Amino acid sequence: VVRRTKGFSWGAAGVSTALFTGVVMAEILKKAKPKRGARYVCMEGADKLPNGYYGTSVKLNWVMDPNRGMMLAHGMNGEPLTPDHGFPLRAVIPGQIGGRSVKWFKRIIVTAEPSDNWYHIYDNRVLPTTVSPEESANDPKWWIDERYAIYDLSTNSAIAYPAHEEQLGLVGAPEKYRVKGYAYGGGGRRVTRVEVTLDKGKTWRLANIDYAEDRYREAGPRQLCGGTLDMEWRESSFCWCFWNIDIPVPEVSQAGDICVRAMDESINVQPRDMYWS
Amino acid sequence: VVRRTKGFSWGAAGVSTALFTGVVMAEILKKAKPKRGARYVCMEGADKLPNGYYGTSVKLNWVMDPNRGMMLAHGMNGEPLTPDHGFPLRAVIPGQIGGRSVKWFKRIIVTAEPSDNWYHIYDNRVLPTTVSPEESANDPKWWIDERYAIYDLSTNSAIAYPAHEEQLGLVGAPEKYRVKGYAYGGGGRRVTRVEVTLDKGKTWRLANIDYAEDRYREAGPRQLCGGTLDMEWRESSFCWCFWNIDIPVPEVSQAGDICVRAMDESINVQPRDMYWS
Repeated sequence: VVRRTKGFSWGAAGVSTALFTGVVMAEILKKAKPKRGARYVCMEGADKLPNGYYGTSVKLNWVMDPNRGMMLAHGMNGEPLTPDHGFPLRAVIPGQIGGRSVKWFKRIIVTAEPSDNWYHIYDNRVLPTTVSPEESANDPKWWIDERYAIYDLSTNSAIAYPAHEEQLGLVGAPEKYRVKGYAYGGGGRRVTRVEVTLDKGKTWRLANIDYAEDRYREAGPRQLCGGTLDMEWRESSFCWCFWNIDIPVPEVSQAGDICVRAMDESINVQPRDMYWS
Repeated sequence: VVRRTKGFSWGAAGVSTALFTGVVMAEILKKAKPKRGARYVCMEGADKLPNGYYGTSVKLNWVMDPNRGMMLAHGMNGEPLTPDHGFPLRAVIPGQIGGRSVKWFKRIIVTAEPSDNWYHIYDNRVLPTTVSPEESANDPKWWIDERYAIYDLSTNSAIAYPAHEEQLGLVGAPEKYRVKGYAYGGGGRRVTRVEVTLDKGKTWRLANIDYAEDRYREAGPRQLCGGTLDMEWRESSFCWCFWNIDIPVPEVSQAGDICVRAMDESINVQPRDMYWS
């Protein structure tokens, strides 16, 4: 632990993948004809929380960009949304932090300023490391600075195998052990390389990457899960890619730890040191 | 020096800013009506080099995205392009590595595959650290893997003051010294914070940021430099922002070094360790 924060940790499970069916949000907003000066799309859910209904906003420009795939969904993996997933209607904001994907969708408002909903301001922000929990608790200026809101996620990767508590018998073991995991670019950016180290970053090994999402692109347009799925034209990558690398068992057995880092198509690489807030 | 590469270093001067006048490339391509399966825009210049005319490609989806501001320009800062800047016509591909902004523009071709021009393949790539110069020289597979091509740049920052060889007289010095520099997000992403350290990263201080580019947004649409400048609707940030922080002179005089790091709006932070290739 670097420092106890006022927030919480998602661990390595902050992103999931599903096939949603619904309407592209841009099509709805085109009909609304936003005026000059419109910059944000505010959304509100029907879930009343201690500080009012849940609400947040995203950039209008992003909503209008077809590559960002933002939608209002009524189905998930071919079935109507369940209550847990936002029945009857929810926003799906791919590549961004989950808090922007408003469930139990109730209202949409185009504005010049970001949402002033309590949860937009006090949830899903990463304040600068320089700001102590006490300082941020006492001074709202840190929270209303829109620069510290999380929208697009950053490059991330995780190791799935070896799993927790996994044991590898060395007697009669195969020559190589396959280290495996997933990686994610954020903001629709493709992960372009995944590297693994057994010596704390002194040397790196290049992993293989399987972009499972591309198989939907290659399949061409089709009816699937109650909607038309056509990703062939879309360049953005919103799903995990899966990486693997075979490492000789003697090297695995002697390694103190195995670390992974990913780089996205903007040459942004995961840093060695944690950015905490 | 980490390792001598086969490439070269731009130092801290790889990005510049100018006002270009021309035609939005998307408008031209809309008239061409690209077919299904079209994914890349190949461009060729009139500069014949040892391995043929200079050429490269960018993603068609990006060209069609108005936020990315890609254009064919005939003017720069209100004057016709000079020969050095690509007279009579050049591409301007903001946020990406300079090699995509083809000068002395001659040809544009929409294709399913990236450019096969020698300079597209052997220029402007960052190979994985695992690949040695000898290995990459002997095996073209590393060069034709489009994942290793540089398009959008990564988050960057530089210190301009203290300048090289600058001396600060301590007798009668002001109370504080203003450390200053610039930062850049790449790919149109806004820099959301700049932090400075005097103790090699143990502690950080938050700098002030001036987004000079925003003043064009705030000015509204106007005729400028022989074209219509209207950035009010555009969310992307393609220019340097300028940062500064006042540090007490006794702390500056005792610091072994001053380091800076920036974070972009995707929470991508500059890593402590260099990624070399």
